[in-house]
Amino acid sequence: MASSSLWQRFQQYLLCYRDLDFSLDISRMKFSEDFFEKMQPKMEKAFTAMRELEAGAIANPTENRMVGHYWLRNPLLAPTPELRAEIQDTIKRIKRFAEDVHAGKIAAENGERFKHVLLIGIGGSALGPQLVADALGSARDPMDIFFFDNTDPDGFDRVFERLDDLLPQTLVVVVSKSGGTKETRNGMLEAEARFKEKGLQFNKHAVAVTGVGSDLDQYAEKNRWLARFPMYDWIGGRTSVMSAVGLLPMALEGFDIDSFLAGAAANGKGDKDMVIIPYKDRLALFAKYLQQLVMESLGKEKDLEGKIVHQGIAVYGNKGSTDQHAYVQQLRDGVLNFFVTFIEVDKDRGNSAIEVEDGVTSGDYLHGFLRGTRSALYDSGRESITISIPEVNAFDLGALIALYERAVGFYGSLINVNAYDQPGVEAGKKAATRLLQLQKQVKARMVVGQGKTAEEIARALDADPEDVFHVLRHLASNDPHIMVAAGEESSEDRFSLDEEP
Amino acid sequence: MASSSLWQRFQQYLLCYRDLDFSLDISRMKFSEDFFEKMQPKMEKAFTAMRELEAGAIANPTENRMVGHYWLRNPLLAPTPELRAEIQDTIKRIKRFAEDVHAGKIAAENGERFKHVLLIGIGGSALGPQLVADALGSARDPMDIFFFDNTDPDGFDRVFERLDDLLPQTLVVVVSKSGGTKETRNGMLEAEARFKEKGLQFNKHAVAVTGVGSDLDQYAEKNRWLARFPMYDWIGGRTSVMSAVGLLPMALEGFDIDSFLAGAAANGKGDKDMVIIPYKDRLALFAKYLQQLVMESLGKEKDLEGKIVHQGIAVYGNKGSTDQHAYVQQLRDGVLNFFVTFIEVDKDRGNSAIEVEDGVTSGDYLHGFLRGTRSALYDSGRESITISIPEVNAFDLGALIALYERAVGFYGSLINVNAYDQPGVEAGKKAATRLLQLQKQVKARMVVGQGKTAEEIARALDADPEDVFHVLRHLASNDPHIMVAAGEESSEDRFSLDEEP
Repeated sequence: MASSSLWQRFQQYLLCYRDLDFSLDISRMKFSEDFFEKMQPKMEKAFTAMRELEAGAIANPTENRMVGHYWLRNPLLAPTPELRAEIQDTIKRIKRFAEDVHAGKIAAENGERFKHVLLIGIGGSALGPQLVADALGSARDPMDIFFFDNTDPDGFDRVFERLDDLLPQTLVVVVSKSGGTKETRNGMLEAEARFKEKGLQFNKHAVAVTGVGSDLDQYAEKNRWLARFPMYDWIGGRTSVMSAVGLLPMALEGFDIDSFLAGAAANGKGDKDMVIIPYKDRLALFAKYLQQLVMESLGKEKDLEGKIVHQGIAVYGNKGSTDQHAYVQQLRDGVLNFFVTFIEVDKDRGNSAIEVEDGVTSGDYLHGFLRGTRSALYDSGRESITISIPEVNAFDLGALIALYERAVGFYGSLINVNAYDQPGVEAGKKAATRLLQLQKQVKARMVVGQGKTAEEIARALDADPEDVFHVLRHLASNDPHIMVAAGEESSEDRFSLDEEP
Repeated sequence: MASSSLWQRFQQYLLCYRDLDFSLDISRMKFSEDFFEKMQPKMEKAFTAMRELEAGAIANPTENRMVGHYWLRNPLLAPTPELRAEIQDTIKRIKRFAEDVHAGKIAAENGERFKHVLLIGIGGSALGPQLVADALGSARDPMDIFFFDNTDPDGFDRVFERLDDLLPQTLVVVVSKSGGTKETRNGMLEAEARFKEKGLQFNKHAVAVTGVGSDLDQYAEKNRWLARFPMYDWIGGRTSVMSAVGLLPMALEGFDIDSFLAGAAANGKGDKDMVIIPYKDRLALFAKYLQQLVMESLGKEKDLEGKIVHQGIAVYGNKGSTDQHAYVQQLRDGVLNFFVTFIEVDKDRGNSAIEVEDGVTSGDYLHGFLRGTRSALYDSGRESITISIPEVNAFDLGALIALYERAVGFYGSLINVNAYDQPGVEAGKKAATRLLQLQKQVKARMVVGQGKTAEEIARALDADPEDVFHVLRHLASNDPHIMVAAGEESSEDRFSLDEEP
């Protein structure tokens, strides 16, 4: 037997959950023998915090909210019978709705079965459903799914181009917790306009997933949409995939939501960039999903005592072995500012395999590349974790997501930050709103004739000339009535109207 | 006018290339007034190195190769008339081939026009074509495109599922410079088997893009494939998008390759994570493309003198404003280990716009979010660069790619590393090959009956028991003849054959 000091370490630090067929290998991470002992008191504290959170404590103090996403997969954990009933009732309603859609009881205007879903959402309201659709989807599903996940007008047009003939049989699911997210609102209005253009009644296609009483909820009620499903106050966007946000599209696509929730409920024991490399095409979106979950949860300026800490872990990755042909060069040789998590899927494929060489299949190669890269990284002192799951199905996907939700929750406790708010994105939204207001003022100042420079308009409005400059450039590129005459420097460009409005 | 000390700085550090309608704003990066003066000598050296590279110097010393990707867009730069003619001739042949395919002169076996492309490649042989297809594609293109970019067997099956009825009219483009990349070879063999299964002759569908005389080239010649296009020795995979690798699929999809090359040839003057956020859905793959270009080029262990430097810049990002709902929280508040590059596209959409509020469009929002986030990041001391292009067309995409190719080349010179090799990925490939050999040996040791543990087999083979363990697990998951009997610990599992082979 080749001498291998690692075989002992591997056996010691490979955690196998036989019932789940799920394993986690931390043998290639650097930690001292007494690491777990030293961490014991801090972990006790984190476990206590987690128990309090599950019991309904205000675990998100900045937003003064309970944090209840763990209740979704195990309603018995919910702190009151009302909450419990609400969760169970919503799951039942989702299943019934999907059954009725599949059976054609809830049908399109032309009487035919709905065959397509257009999901409109952004961030946590889109990433979860996108991951699930990519991981579990097949051409045999009862409905296929399209996404609006931005406010890019050309992005809307691209999706409409593909949906064009399919609109009459398309169900639109609009997802926004607050009901006021501008990107989602814009997508909904764009979709509504397009349905109208095609002679279709939008409300006969539309379903809302939103907070009870939100603007969107009221709009959907007033306009008699097909259905409304609740998004609870105690669920954050990035942990909403097991609420109606994730479950409704899953049920419509024909995936097994019970199994997904069971995987997530399953029990086991158990300031660098985090590079996530699943060796499986179906999990290519998982790194992007974790990018949001981890970075939005842990990327915080202050800890819970208000001390400036600037915490965070940058996350990136796509899939292996593809990424070996992209950035793995830097991982092995370059700057050492990361650790890798490999995700291994034991089962290669559903179909039968051909041999690409004598006795070797494509799947043997995929496995070989994972092991080879893990070994090469270890040899050059790069740490890695390996997670193994038997296959990509609803259960294991649920388990994988739940593992990271837990890990992020514990990590947040350990570094003492609020893992459930996202105060940092507000400033950008406010600045955007100010710029849109400025745009209206700038438009109102535009005149026919010689035109004005950004500085001249800014002076008149008492505004920042750079902001005015950007607004003018944007208008000149998109509003056919706004003309630009080039100056010597671009800051001296003059903007005018082509005719009186 | 609101007092804005930034307006002066913005004007000073906004570089506008009027002819290209391309601008680059570095006013939100932190550098001292004398930075450019101080850098002058180093930049002179980098410019000299670039001139030598363009003149045919051996700019990739570890692989002893010229680095000629700049010649592709401006053949007059090529150091010999032969190279020049070769480049121009290949472009002509690509155009003619695509014209013949579109016109049905080169037709499918059933006499119909080819309508679909399946591109088989990995890393630089897939990422460029993927970016271009996503950025420039529309439902009106003469051919649509699918990709094999991995050796994931289930990944192959997913694509086949979508292509199933379309195979008779599918053209397969196999791309591998060395002609020996295993993932690509496996993909080709899988495709060949599937065509055969459908009663189709693979060679009547197949085209190779590969080094002259490579294994793939010989295979394609022997089997009389439809065509072969050369991939030159002096082009690296990650800078191959302007060679036949990128141009052939572009021409087949009906995109304007002359304009793409013209954009790339256009002239202008001009150890943190790099976060790339294009505010445009069509450019969502650009960060992934740069991840390869930058990290594989700059992520190096040694400099050109052999000194250990561990250089590199980690790159990630997707698209805005979507990413504002994901990790922008961490960018603004969290760990300060990055700078952002915003990419702005002036033109909102090709179609007419609806108003989502009085006087405001979805595109106004997209612009507002970009400006708002840039401003919020600046306010909390986060640096950013903004690049503005008029729209996403072949020309501007060419210009954008070329800008980063140049930047990476100069940066490589400044930090004195070889930006054109990738020695770090070899170790992983070798370890993978060893594991596949071990797998064959392990299989040969398997017997009917009580079964053996990983340790027992490893001892007999003088192999690492952990490697044997992983091989056994993989085999047990995928080979129906291999059985496993669970031990107390998973390392004590016993593996056996179900019957004599």
